[in-house]
Amino acid sequence: MMKERGCCASICQCFFEYSTPKILVIRSFKVGTVNRITQALVIAYVIGYVCVVNKGYQETDAVLSSVTTKVKGIALTNTSDLGLQIWDVADYVIPPQEESTFFVLTNLLITLNQTQSHCPEVPKTGFDCTSDRDCKAGSRDTRGNGVQTGKCVKYSAAEKTCEVLAWCPLELDKEPPNPPMLADAENFTVLIKNSIRYPKFNFNKRNILPYVNKTYLEQCVFNRITDPDCPIFRLKDMVTEANEDFQTMAVHGGVMGVQIRWECDLDMPSSWCVPRYTFRRLDNKDPVNNVAPGYNFRFAKYYKNGNNEETRTLIKGFGIRFDVMVFGQAGKFNIVPTLLNLGAGLALLGLVTVVCDWIVLTCMTKKNIYNEQKYSYVDDFQLLSNETP
Amino acid sequence: MMKERGCCASICQCFFEYSTPKILVIRSFKVGTVNRITQALVIAYVIGYVCVVNKGYQETDAVLSSVTTKVKGIALTNTSDLGLQIWDVADYVIPPQEESTFFVLTNLLITLNQTQSHCPEVPKTGFDCTSDRDCKAGSRDTRGNGVQTGKCVKYSAAEKTCEVLAWCPLELDKEPPNPPMLADAENFTVLIKNSIRYPKFNFNKRNILPYVNKTYLEQCVFNRITDPDCPIFRLKDMVTEANEDFQTMAVHGGVMGVQIRWECDLDMPSSWCVPRYTFRRLDNKDPVNNVAPGYNFRFAKYYKNGNNEETRTLIKGFGIRFDVMVFGQAGKFNIVPTLLNLGAGLALLGLVTVVCDWIVLTCMTKKNIYNEQKYSYVDDFQLLSNETP
Amino acid sequence: MMKERGCCASICQCFFEYSTPKILVIRSFKVGTVNRITQALVIAYVIGYVCVVNKGYQETDAVLSSVTTKVKGIALTNTSDLGLQIWDVADYVIPPQEESTFFVLTNLLITLNQTQSHCPEVPKTGFDCTSDRDCKAGSRDTRGNGVQTGKCVKYSAAEKTCEVLAWCPLELDKEPPNPPMLADAENFTVLIKNSIRYPKFNFNKRNILPYVNKTYLEQCVFNRITDPDCPIFRLKDMVTEANEDFQTMAVHGGVMGVQIRWECDLDMPSSWCVPRYTFRRLDNKDPVNNVAPGYNFRFAKYYKNGNNEETRTLIKGFGIRFDVMVFGQAGKFNIVPTLLNLGAGLALLGLVTVVCDWIVLTCMTKKNIYNEQKYSYVDDFQLLSNETP
Repeated sequence: MMKERGCCASICQCFFEYSTPKILVIRSFKVGTVNRITQALVIAYVIGYVCVVNKGYQETDAVLSSVTTKVKGIALTNTSDLGLQIWDVADYVIPPQEESTFFVLTNLLITLNQTQSHCPEVPKTGFDCTSDRDCKAGSRDTRGNGVQTGKCVKYSAAEKTCEVLAWCPLELDKEPPNPPMLADAENFTVLIKNSIRYPKFNFNKRNILPYVNKTYLEQCVFNRITDPDCPIFRLKDMVTEANEDFQTMAVHGGVMGVQIRWECDLDMPSSWCVPRYTFRRLDNKDPVNNVAPGYNFRFAKYYKNGNNEETRTLIKGFGIRFDVMVFGQAGKFNIVPTLLNLGAGLALLGLVTVVCDWIVLTCMTKKNIYNEQKYSYVDDFQLLSNETP
Repeated sequence: MMKERGCCASICQCFFEYSTPKILVIRSFKVGTVNRITQALVIAYVIGYVCVVNKGYQETDAVLSSVTTKVKGIALTNTSDLGLQIWDVADYVIPPQEESTFFVLTNLLITLNQTQSHCPEVPKTGFDCTSDRDCKAGSRDTRGNGVQTGKCVKYSAAEKTCEVLAWCPLELDKEPPNPPMLADAENFTVLIKNSIRYPKFNFNKRNILPYVNKTYLEQCVFNRITDPDCPIFRLKDMVTEANEDFQTMAVHGGVMGVQIRWECDLDMPSSWCVPRYTFRRLDNKDPVNNVAPGYNFRFAKYYKNGNNEETRTLIKGFGIRFDVMVFGQAGKFNIVPTLLNLGAGLALLGLVTVVCDWIVLTCMTKKNIYNEQKYSYVDDFQLLSNETP
Repeated sequence: MMKERGCCASICQCFFEYSTPKILVIRSFKVGTVNRITQALVIAYVIGYVCVVNKGYQETDAVLSSVTTKVKGIALTNTSDLGLQIWDVADYVIPPQEESTFFVLTNLLITLNQTQSHCPEVPKTGFDCTSDRDCKAGSRDTRGNGVQTGKCVKYSAAEKTCEVLAWCPLELDKEPPNPPMLADAENFTVLIKNSIRYPKFNFNKRNILPYVNKTYLEQCVFNRITDPDCPIFRLKDMVTEANEDFQTMAVHGGVMGVQIRWECDLDMPSSWCVPRYTFRRLDNKDPVNNVAPGYNFRFAKYYKNGNNEETRTLIKGFGIRFDVMVFGQAGKFNIVPTLLNLGAGLALLGLVTVVCDWIVLTCMTKKNIYNEQKYSYVDDFQLLSNETP
């Protein structure tokens, strides 16, 4: 009975215990100063960097985004092939809709009235010939435009090349026009509609801000100083902000990044959460290593002529692809990351003790006194300890 | 010799040392209770939140995904322009294939037989005129449809507008038909094939689950209750799940998000890892700030008439773009994150000592006794210490 | 005055204090060995895993990427419908440009000269009929090709099916040709241009490496051993690297992932940061559960005939979609993550004390001596403590 009560009591005793390390307090100008300075550094780092700069007390969420774009503008071209020609949005945006990117045609090489027939290959190494023996029937070179028939025919008065089965007449392998044909494209405008969502915080917003009304939207154009909230951008302005020249870029085409950054501190009023637009050229225009510059692709319009034969107009289109990239994260106070960062900060405070202990026990004149006070010893080495002086 | 042996011994001694802090155990109801409760809170937090809810013992991997879609369905329209017309998938999905999104045409404004020619601009502020002096040859307004010729011509009996070189006749600037022309689109179905991969765990799965056979797939339609694993979705059902009305949305178009979530605990059987489908409208249809609503774009079909002149049919297409978004992460036990979370938990246990020390040494009646026992002092301040009482 | 000076002094004293825990040093073979081994394990883990393998001393950044692609090659087909036909890039890449993906047509079912008219539905369960009563005027089945007129007409000498208003003649529901029509596609090449950027480190690079010149680029083809830096890929090589057979895959189509990995250690010379290419089939070709295999979609070319009637050529296109996926992260030394990982490592060193204390105080023969030396007691339980033996 007495024993049972003792056992119970000792469990109780154990439960109501609190263990705290015994501390040696050293009162010293030098050590104290080093200690406080190190502590101050760590605390300043934890508070300043982790809490203020990185907002470690906030839970964060990545942005979900939906982008639609709408280009407007008219271009006029005047060529010997086509005469005066008007280009509107249905003509120069290819394909007509994409998820968060749009392509604007700025320059082109056009080959009219192609049909499936026979014609001499464009003169190039490997396609020149003097007789049929130089041409191999059925050969299809990736650099060529068709399948060789095996005949050697006149390309011009001076030159003979292998005949091919292809879409004839062949496209001439020449440089794109300079200045670009759709030079007017610099004045095209694009309306970018962007809705974002931070799912964790159930927060929705869009880049057409609440105060923007229909009247303003019908006549505004983005300008970093006067109209920073207008979601309508002039193509030339975007290219200029990326330190590029529109007319130069338009000749060979290229890829532009339209970056929309939504950095939102949701502990602040939600009206402070606004998009920031930046523009950057994404493809490389390194003049030293200028291999395969710009951006172009080929597409065709197919027709049938009176004899029900298929003909096509082949267009090698050069232009600027604008990739809309939406970035950003939102933060809101949450106890979990706060505790985590507090814990990490405390762990770093442990470094202070390591640094100061090392100074106290090795560098100070009174290090022996401190050693004596800080450490107690239990020695198991009977033999060894007898030998130590 | 003796000295060398002593040196060696003292290194040995140092190696076989173990330093452990000296602990003061306080046996007290109050302090013990505070201590144990704080400890319990921290441990409960670490185990409950970090381990169970956040699965801190698992290594995680983000999903890699590939999506293909296939729409099916037939719509019938009856207009004065076109008469009875059938629309099938090749007609209403534009462009015919995209990476993880598809667009379904639901409404349209059609302008037939446009050719490059001259015609009066659509009446709008800025284009009205009374004489040729009001029109500026060569002017190309972004809001206009062509390049002005400088003439002022009759638009209707009552109105005169500036003449433009453009694709004529011009598109009339009017509201889209309501009800939408392709109202039948609500019954279209889409098969969404989605293969996912967690590369770290070499785990592959697809949304057509193993038990789904061809027979089932030919007649099933997704239903959250009866057919939650069928990967074929009726467009109207998707829109309805997002709390929108299909016919209303179809008039001006919009953007829908089809979210596929793969949350996989790979410590569990892999058959538990199944996709969850949710649907949300991504564009904003805020009725207060209703600027530029919906989703539409213009595209054209090009023809050549008997005289080898190019004509086109311009279509302003309104419709719903469905963006398929694949989310999710997989987790599997791994020793590294387990150790990391254990370390962070231990660091937080350090907080317990801070809290309890503060209570013990400032609030308790016997705080002087505790202070005396916990702290020893080495004092370097001869002068100062003489002055302290 | 004296008191004030005393108060000031005690604040000074407090400021120049340094608290360090009192340590009990146990000199013992067993405990020392356990202690040093545990310490060595933790330190080896922290240094080896966190610092060397995971490069915990580095700040990391995710890659931003821009991709453009350009396919080259010619295919020849010979069918009864079309005769000898040449296919070039404008014919087989659909749509002509996409953001970071491209589709190459490899096989097709073609239906020529469709017009909006009446014709019998393709025989299938649900469309067969014996008299007009079996057909419902206005019915539009998602599996059908048009809207039923309510008549039952002859499909062939033996069969009668319901008549539909549709694009007639209807596409025949048959398997795609095998071998695939554009078998030549295996020799097509694609130039993939990829510019990357690590914004935090202001580091740009592209996959056309500095030493690659125009001459090399005009004739090279990627080969993992001989030409690992050539950005031009033969389609067949990519498919073969993914352990698939091109001709088999080309029949029904599929989805290929072209993965470009940029793992860059920016503490090393930037020329060490090069792209690694890998290829994987993304869609599932599980032979057991082979539901809806491959990748195909329908598109049409629209024409107008002499009577200004619209006709179209419907193409069910099978092909391979190549999704270019750019991965990778860059790391560079930074003091912040270094400190964080050091802190976490120190916290783990706390585990050593926990483990060793447990061994020392429960398993060792002299545990009572250690206990006595490590712990001091302050006891508040007058009554209880009297009862304990």
